Amino acid sequence: MRKLEELKTGKAKRLYNTDDATVLWVEYLDQATALNGKRKEKIASKGALNNQIDCLLFNYLIQNGIATDFIRQVSATEQLIHPVKMIPLEVVVRNLASGSFQRKFATTYLQPLSRPIVELFYKSDALDDPFINDDQVEVLGLASAAELAAIKQLALKINQLLQSRFAQANLTLVDFKIEVGYLAGQLVLADEISPDSCRLVDQTTQASLDKDVFRKQTGDLTTVYQEVLTRLQNSEVAHVSR
Amino acid sequence: MRKLEELKTGKAKRLYNTDDATVLWVEYLDQATALNGKRKEKIASKGALNNQIDCLLFNYLIQNGIATDFIRQVSATEQLIHPVKMIPLEVVVRNLASGSFQRKFATTYLQPLSRPIVELFYKSDALDDPFINDDQVEVLGLASAAELAAIKQLALKINQLLQSRFAQANLTLVDFKIEVGYLAGQLVLADEISPDSCRLVDQTTQASLDKDVFRKQTGDLTTVYQEVLTRLQNSEVAHVSR
Ligand SMILES: Nc1ncnc2c1ncn2[C@@H]1O[C@H](COP(=O)(O)OP(=O)(O)OP(=O)(O)O)[C@@H](O)[C@H]1O
Ligand SMILES: Nc1ncnc2c1ncn2[C@@H]1O[C@H](COP(=O)(O)OP(=O)(O)OP(=O)(O)O)[C@@H](O)[C@H]1O
Ligand SMILES: [Mg+2]
Ligand SMILES: [Mg+2]
Repeated sequence: MRKLEELKTGKAKRLYNTDDATVLWVEYLDQATALNGKRKEKIASKGALNNQIDCLLFNYLIQNGIATDFIRQVSATEQLIHPVKMIPLEVVVRNLASGSFQRKFATTYLQPLSRPIVELFYKSDALDDPFINDDQVEVLGLASAAELAAIKQLALKINQLLQSRFAQANLTLVDFKIEVGYLAGQLVLADEISPDSCRLVDQTTQASLDKDVFRKQTGDLTTVYQEVLTRLQNSEVAHVSR
Repeated sequence: MRKLEELKTGKAKRLYNTDDATVLWVEYLDQATALNGKRKEKIASKGALNNQIDCLLFNYLIQNGIATDFIRQVSATEQLIHPVKMIPLEVVVRNLASGSFQRKFATTYLQPLSRPIVELFYKSDALDDPFINDDQVEVLGLASAAELAAIKQLALKINQLLQSRFAQANLTLVDFKIEVGYLAGQLVLADEISPDSCRLVDQTTQASLDKDVFRKQTGDLTTVYQEVLTRLQNSEVAHVSR
């Protein structure tokens, strides 16, 4: 496997082509952004932390039957994935009220929801990723009704699995964002799952252990991401030895 | 039937109780607002025009099997309705791109949609009537999944009927907003349908014949509302004599 030219660079990762057309090489970057990229900072070891957390979670999801774009980790900051025909949606699942939901509906922070809520956002930098409903998704041709049903089912299944995995690490999964797409005709989980795209709070203290410490400038990103990784690694051992 | 004390006054109408607990007396006001009430103007004869257009359209919908809160017109500016347990949603149906949809998705003005789109907004002055998806409606307890299905079905049926009625008046129904609720346990159309809550364009010239002339200050509201009423009245005669 040889890393070839850069394919695209986003706010958190750089994707490269390889000598195998079915494989992309991903490098996680030491970069954090907020306010849709308007605030940007270099943060040492963030790439390594997110890559390791993402690899651990994707391996766990694959073991539990979720189809993904993930192949394998190749270094602390790098992994191999399959190229996916991405669906231009951000799929958000919420278990407790926070962020835009809390602001929009003036709920209490971390108010429990009677069941998980799925929200869709149209991935379009030009349009500033607008919140979108199912009818709009279908009429704009982003996904069909049947595809939307499959996407939501996948997102809710992933939510269940992640909730129980994070609970082992004494973490509550407040909400998270995924991206999905097609790999050889099959709907798969793609992109990343990390404290950049999840809201996590300590089950006991309710302290934030995610990108909110960077967004709200209430703590050190490296410290809390390291805490998440360590807890996941330790609970993995606990799980195996049971 | 005696008009008693005022029940509530909105931006466009005043509702009164009557000596019959199953009847409300509605007075349409000579008042136009834009920017969620921030801009407000007194406009002579607007109340009479909207009341007459609304009575004509509700009578037409009732004749075509739609359950509503409407009883009968009592004067140029007044009508009787049944009190309804309102569902706090604004239900928008779109046939062509305009307004917030056009802005949000950067489409062309009046771009045809492949099928009608339903959008829901949570009626809450405190929250500024936010756009809301089905999961959020259900979890916030505003309506169940079954109720949402019935609301959308009702809205789309009304859309079909209104499209063909306006077409008789050489008008294209671009989009409209309705409110619905329960009357004796039955889901019914309530509130109003008028050029305040519909976007209408001339089928030939595409000129706006609705509140957009007030919002955008491109024409005289009274003139275009009178034009809509006259066209509807004339096409009603045409319809009967056929
Ligand atoms: N398996 C995959 N195949 C193709 N593209 C992918 C895959 N997984 C993720 N991507 C895309 O890689 C890009 C880089 O990821 P990154 O998270 O850095 O982007 P980003 O800054 O969040 O930008 P965007 O707004 O496009 O998501 C994203 O556009 C993401 O959708
Ligand atoms: N059949 C009905 N029973 C009870 N209330 C009704 C009925 N039909 C309409 N209403 C309510 O009457 C109120 C007055 O109408 P109006 O259109 O003037 O209000 P508005 O300024 O649009 O305010 P809102 O933001 O509450 O709709 C509205 O709150 C509307 O929902
Ligand atoms: Mg991303
Ligand atoms: Mg109103």
